Amino acid sequence: MAKKLMKGNEAIAEAAIAAGCLSYFAYPITPQSEVAEYLSWRLPEVNGLFVQAESEVAVGNMIFGAAATGKRVFTTSSSPGISLMQEAISYMAGAHLPVVLVNIMRGGPGLGGILPAQSDYFQAVKGGGHGDYRIIVLAPASVQEAVDLMILAFDLADKYRTPVMLIGDGMIGQMMEAVEFPEKYDPPSSPDGKDWPLTGAKGRPARIIKSLFLDPYKLEKNNFDLAATYKIIREKEVRHELYKVSPKNRVLITAYGTMARICQTAIDELETEGISVGLFRPITLFPFPEKEIFDEAAKPNIEVVLSVEMSMGQMVEDIERCVKDRKPVDFFGRTGGIVPTPDEVKNKVREIVKSRK
Amino acid sequence: MAKKLMKGNEAIAEAAIAAGCLSYFAYPITPQSEVAEYLSWRLPEVNGLFVQAESEVAVGNMIFGAAATGKRVFTTSSSPGISLMQEAISYMAGAHLPVVLVNIMRGGPGLGGILPAQSDYFQAVKGGGHGDYRIIVLAPASVQEAVDLMILAFDLADKYRTPVMLIGDGMIGQMMEAVEFPEKYDPPSSPDGKDWPLTGAKGRPARIIKSLFLDPYKLEKNNFDLAATYKIIREKEVRHELYKVSPKNRVLITAYGTMARICQTAIDELETEGISVGLFRPITLFPFPEKEIFDEAAKPNIEVVLSVEMSMGQMVEDIERCVKDRKPVDFFGRTGGIVPTPDEVKNKVREIVKSRK
Amino acid sequence: MAKKLMKGNEAIAEAAIAAGCLSYFAYPITPQSEVAEYLSWRLPEVNGLFVQAESEVAVGNMIFGAAATGKRVFTTSSSPGISLMQEAISYMAGAHLPVVLVNIMRGGPGLGGILPAQSDYFQAVKGGGHGDYRIIVLAPASVQEAVDLMILAFDLADKYRTPVMLIGDGMIGQMMEAVEFPEKYDPPSSPDGKDWPLTGAKGRPARIIKSLFLDPYKLEKNNFDLAATYKIIREKEVRHELYKVSPKNRVLITAYGTMARICQTAIDELETEGISVGLFRPITLFPFPEKEIFDEAAKPNIEVVLSVEMSMGQMVEDIERCVKDRKPVDFFGRTGGIVPTPDEVKNKVREIVKSRK
Amino acid sequence: MAKKLMKGNEAIAEAAIAAGCLSYFAYPITPQSEVAEYLSWRLPEVNGLFVQAESEVAVGNMIFGAAATGKRVFTTSSSPGISLMQEAISYMAGAHLPVVLVNIMRGGPGLGGILPAQSDYFQAVKGGGHGDYRIIVLAPASVQEAVDLMILAFDLADKYRTPVMLIGDGMIGQMMEAVEFPEKYDPPSSPDGKDWPLTGAKGRPARIIKSLFLDPYKLEKNNFDLAATYKIIREKEVRHELYKVSPKNRVLITAYGTMARICQTAIDELETEGISVGLFRPITLFPFPEKEIFDEAAKPNIEVVLSVEMSMGQMVEDIERCVKDRKPVDFFGRTGGIVPTPDEVKNKVREIVKSRK
Repeated sequence: MAKKLMKGNEAIAEAAIAAGCLSYFAYPITPQSEVAEYLSWRLPEVNGLFVQAESEVAVGNMIFGAAATGKRVFTTSSSPGISLMQEAISYMAGAHLPVVLVNIMRGGPGLGGILPAQSDYFQAVKGGGHGDYRIIVLAPASVQEAVDLMILAFDLADKYRTPVMLIGDGMIGQMMEAVEFPEKYDPPSSPDGKDWPLTGAKGRPARIIKSLFLDPYKLEKNNFDLAATYKIIREKEVRHELYKVSPKNRVLITAYGTMARICQTAIDELETEGISVGLFRPITLFPFPEKEIFDEAAKPNIEVVLSVEMSMGQMVEDIERCVKDRKPVDFFGRTGGIVPTPDEVKNKVREIVKSRK
Repeated sequence: MAKKLMKGNEAIAEAAIAAGCLSYFAYPITPQSEVAEYLSWRLPEVNGLFVQAESEVAVGNMIFGAAATGKRVFTTSSSPGISLMQEAISYMAGAHLPVVLVNIMRGGPGLGGILPAQSDYFQAVKGGGHGDYRIIVLAPASVQEAVDLMILAFDLADKYRTPVMLIGDGMIGQMMEAVEFPEKYDPPSSPDGKDWPLTGAKGRPARIIKSLFLDPYKLEKNNFDLAATYKIIREKEVRHELYKVSPKNRVLITAYGTMARICQTAIDELETEGISVGLFRPITLFPFPEKEIFDEAAKPNIEVVLSVEMSMGQMVEDIERCVKDRKPVDFFGRTGGIVPTPDEVKNKVREIVKSRK
Repeated sequence: MAKKLMKGNEAIAEAAIAAGCLSYFAYPITPQSEVAEYLSWRLPEVNGLFVQAESEVAVGNMIFGAAATGKRVFTTSSSPGISLMQEAISYMAGAHLPVVLVNIMRGGPGLGGILPAQSDYFQAVKGGGHGDYRIIVLAPASVQEAVDLMILAFDLADKYRTPVMLIGDGMIGQMMEAVEFPEKYDPPSSPDGKDWPLTGAKGRPARIIKSLFLDPYKLEKNNFDLAATYKIIREKEVRHELYKVSPKNRVLITAYGTMARICQTAIDELETEGISVGLFRPITLFPFPEKEIFDEAAKPNIEVVLSVEMSMGQMVEDIERCVKDRKPVDFFGRTGGIVPTPDEVKNKVREIVKSRK
Repeated sequence: MAKKLMKGNEAIAEAAIAAGCLSYFAYPITPQSEVAEYLSWRLPEVNGLFVQAESEVAVGNMIFGAAATGKRVFTTSSSPGISLMQEAISYMAGAHLPVVLVNIMRGGPGLGGILPAQSDYFQAVKGGGHGDYRIIVLAPASVQEAVDLMILAFDLADKYRTPVMLIGDGMIGQMMEAVEFPEKYDPPSSPDGKDWPLTGAKGRPARIIKSLFLDPYKLEKNNFDLAATYKIIREKEVRHELYKVSPKNRVLITAYGTMARICQTAIDELETEGISVGLFRPITLFPFPEKEIFDEAAKPNIEVVLSVEMSMGQMVEDIERCVKDRKPVDFFGRTGGIVPTPDEVKNKVREIVKSRK
């Protein structure tokens, strides 16, 4: 298929359709309302369904219900809206429901601002809702990758019967890039061949989808099942990308999403100054590339690991945990919608390098 | 004042009044509805206010509004109810509002069960809502400590203008113990002497309480202010308790809340078998006793650190982070409302000790 | 088309589809939840849409939005649920939106009971919402008539751009009768050929659908437009049915819906006793057959007009208004889910006749 | 007590306090938000309670709960807000709960406008909610009368255990007039001496307040009890006022609320032209002064009865019903926030008189 110039928000919407997902529930919030706008006319074209609910709380419960039918289902929102869905996300995780959530993060906390941020890392990765659950979290760094990861998100959700969140920032939603979609779109998703969806019990025993288990042994069993799934996910689904990683690197930058692209520019420019820096970009935030980061950070040439984020420092805690005190971990971030520039990143690296001489 | 035999839920309620908090907003949910039942007749006696809202979402916004007046305000709920407040908690943190939240945790995820659990550690400590914020989290291990920490919670909330969460499990709510309240109750809290509450702008410039800052530099400034506060909190407010910590210990157990008391029983019994085990009990979960745990774990006699939790393993990630790979960190937990018994803990310790011979 | 044995609730559902209405929004409530159950599997078969909203308030606003697209839309509920939609009904009337509402009435006020009643006459006919609006109200007396009036309801809604309510009681929902549907179902309704729906403004000036007019002259103009429509409706859409009306009648019974059928049985039996009674059954409650009732009541042979209702007396006020003091108007009713029996009606008539000798 | 110059909205608020009502629940809506603003600082002064709920639906249920405690309770709103309370009003009527509601009407239907109207007559008087219930409706024509009727409203609500609505228009809310309050304010209302409120069941059998009666005989019994109350109300609580009613009158104007005052001006001016017109002003809209209107209208000198309203014609239907075809009933009204002027009323009367020569 030919490449097409598209905004990130629209590409995300189209990618869901490409994945055979024709059911979308949402409540508008800047900076991702364009997804809803696009789907409001696009879904009817493909015989799909878009319900604008009365609030994000309602959205959370609608996608629970829709996912229970075994069809592919998704929603999109931004930070405060995602907070309102935390109860429902915990319910869906507990009920083993596949569903895709997109968080185009804006600056927080509270109403905050409408400009890009990466300050919902903790919420997404550590579990903003209650109980022992995890969700898969994917962080694209380009519009094309947003498309690819959206399609992957639906596959992973189905495969592991779990909520999957694609986490981006306002930049990726607004950015326009050439994207390629699959030659053949997936047929609309169907409950066929699955043994759990609620499709009407005619001619077979009834199925129940729930997260309530008043018998503690059954509830613990459910938690063991979830944990077993998370174990497999940690083993099989870790994804990351390296950029200019070499034995000459003195500093290893870790960054995800569009922040990583800005770091690439900084790395390219630092190279011309003779400062060799590598980039480790986690693509999956959960499962987190724990061993992979440790291995890169442990390499003898690396003097410092630097986590660059559009936050006050969230992923850096996981970096520290993974690096296990073998190397100093430093942090650079801006917040509130301010995006660190390549120059700021370069200055930070120069400082680090200078201080170690 | 003479000691009084009280249920934990009721003692928590009475402690709020002792702290001069006469404003309570809540929506009932097992296993902490007794707080609301108690306050429904107790608050009128002291001229206080109890509003039962139509949902936990409404509660979250009501306590935002009430806290903005500079009076002490609190709510209580249990896991799913706390998830529904995540947006409001982020808003209150962003708006620098002092408020006390109590989470009497039940088994999750989802509706889960109504029996005790500690599986909301991540949500409480890492931030279930969006944005760069933290809340102080206090974990009492007895009814008396619940009373003391409730009073402290209001003081810390006021001092740092931040939400503070007291986190317990169903056991602490149902447990009956002798408790002592302060000789003199605090007078009902008042906005006097504070320069930020909304008390009517007659005769002075208007004040604004908000979490919305469309100018990114102002939003980042707000995040810097919050971060500065969290830094002070990390320096000054760390609390923990040691039990039978000695140079003979081979294992260091970490546990919080009522789980720690069960571990004490196990430790006492292991002692008679000649297995020396110490207990590190974090009282503040945020700020986490990072250095203190490292110091204890780093002692040469400690062979293994064992995190015992009523969860699939949440605090253990922070223990790993603090122990920094100096010692192996092991984990034991039960979930779904099943409370690990002293025997189970002893068996786990015996296994560890045996494997290391 | 061959006759088919169907329950009233299901026949109402199927009739909507026959009328080309494939968009249904509802929240379940006894005694009409079967409509939702039926449509939950039936609408997907015909490529239709059913959204179960989170409350009747949400339903009211969803049908507002859906109706604005120019497609046929309907909801069903029972008394308390209809009360929750009063704001939305007023909004839809003010915005000239065609929509069909079905109220399968249960005993009230408040939660009342789940058995049949006719006690929402005032609400439906006089306007339960605020402002100068009316809605067309249709009252079927059999399952076949429910089908026919459902199809008519959509036609009238479209023709006059107004909400139309079909009002029944629990009996008509539960009754099983042979029904006939049109040979050819209407094609799914479409906005084509209408000059007001919101279908996307590409290539034409934007349209606005609203009930807010801050300029009082524009708001009054809107009220004049509505009033002009109501005037035409009063002139053209009055429907009623007579049963055994003859110059021998001494009493004229007025009754609507299933209550009228019970009165027919009473009338048949009274005839064998030599007491001649006629029945006037309004089919449209708004527009009310004012002149027609006056004409029948004014006939010299009629001594008394008797309004029989499953209520404490609601339509009787309109009967009095129409009869204009020419004849005494008497009333018989039962409430709370108790349906007046033919014997009770006969006794009431015998009493009336005896008292006039 | 000395007279005090006050806005209607504020006088209504103060009158509630004078009546010993210290519990107020509301959601702001133009044109009566000043009541809430006033009470937000005034109620704390008298140790009262104001909860701003999250919506009018919530308000309706909060006043249900508060009224169940036997204390005096009230809310204020405007047209769309009152529509949102229809379910709750029906519930409170069915549960025999005393509560006072104030509707400062604005132009409708739908969002309409924010200027004065009288177009919620049907909703208030005929019952906007479902089921066989009525509420007492009081219509003041001056700020002083608003005060007096507010105090009466609480007395009637208590006496008959029923919701009572004070219905005004935006003018009465904004009008500033000298008002007098009672010398001695009522003490804060209390449940003492009442045998039904929920005050805690210690030492006595539990009480239940509900509107749900699944046994139809019990539900009908509840309806009979309500009807018996309404019968007494109709006998004892009818209130009206005559203005310049004399045997010289050729026309009898009927009007309520501030509309009646404008008609008085017109009547005064018509008098100077030699056209004698009397005014019948219903003060209670339910119970409606049926016999009293009939008696006045039936007087031989009256040629025409003219209903003047700020609506498309609502009360006029009750006038017709009461006049029983003895005299022609004519109507004049403006809507949308446009208030009929004395000149318009005079022109309408002149036309009528001319046409009858």
